Amino acid sequence: MITKTGTSPNCSIARTLDLVSDRWSFMVLREAHLGTTRFADFRDFLHIAPNILTNRLATLVDAGLLEKREYQEAGERTRSSYHLTAAGADLKLVLAALQQWGDVHRPREDGPTVLRRDTRSGRLVNVGFVDEDGDEVSEDDVVFEPVAGSPADRSTWR
Amino acid sequence: MITKTGTSPNCSIARTLDLVSDRWSFMVLREAHLGTTRFADFRDFLHIAPNILTNRLATLVDAGLLEKREYQEAGERTRSSYHLTAAGADLKLVLAALQQWGDVHRPREDGPTVLRRDTRSGRLVNVGFVDEDGDEVSEDDVVFEPVAGSPADRSTWR
Repeated sequence: MITKTGTSPNCSIARTLDLVSDRWSFMVLREAHLGTTRFADFRDFLHIAPNILTNRLATLVDAGLLEKREYQEAGERTRSSYHLTAAGADLKLVLAALQQWGDVHRPREDGPTVLRRDTRSGRLVNVGFVDEDGDEVSEDDVVFEPVAGSPADRSTWR
Repeated sequence: MITKTGTSPNCSIARTLDLVSDRWSFMVLREAHLGTTRFADFRDFLHIAPNILTNRLATLVDAGLLEKREYQEAGERTRSSYHLTAAGADLKLVLAALQQWGDVHRPREDGPTVLRRDTRSGRLVNVGFVDEDGDEVSEDDVVFEPVAGSPADRSTWR
């Protein structure tokens, strides 16, 4: 079934991955979250082939995660820059969760290369589960619960 | 540089994605987080071709995310079941962050198919940033901060 939003899978994880499931897309988004906007900077920081970068940027613009703008410096031709949309910015938690898992389970010998900081308090933050009061809930206490009658409900399969 | 852990990228997001960057791997892990353990159940629930499932399960076992066990029912041959390791279980936050983003930015017409519930309080939970006191921090206030002198530090590139 194709929904109004143009995406088919019933699983929201799958719908997200349809947009960003390849590694280069994630890397471009990470770079955008670090403040990179210009083609040459994406290329140099990521060591990515220009044709692959062009392709991934176009895909991410089409998906509504990046917005393309034009800019021009004195004496130069018009160039494009790429900026996170609200939806792209909201992937911050996804990137942070991937980062946190990697730093714990595949640690780098010399320690993390990127930290997550609360600019208001200046303190470091983690990704976690939070209840509606804004209090952290232990990961061990959280379960994924299929909605009864939805395609994720397997009780009717047996 | 290859580190002791056998992974090369300096970026922890990339190290995580090296393990689970394809969509089927994420789907198998989601299924495991919903409690599925048997080959036939993974196959039926995911509508995945057996050869692809065999391949993904082996990859996830090799990566240390799933553990393979043997079981036998009366009158049947020995079969394998697949169980989350501690590292695999710890991907709960990654899956939940992907799910949450999809439910917000690519919503399903009939609503979410899977919820996240705190089994202690019975309440629904979200994924968010939390400080060391366990208090939620707004996503807008959190920045990714390259560690000075690390490969993510671009200040020395210019």
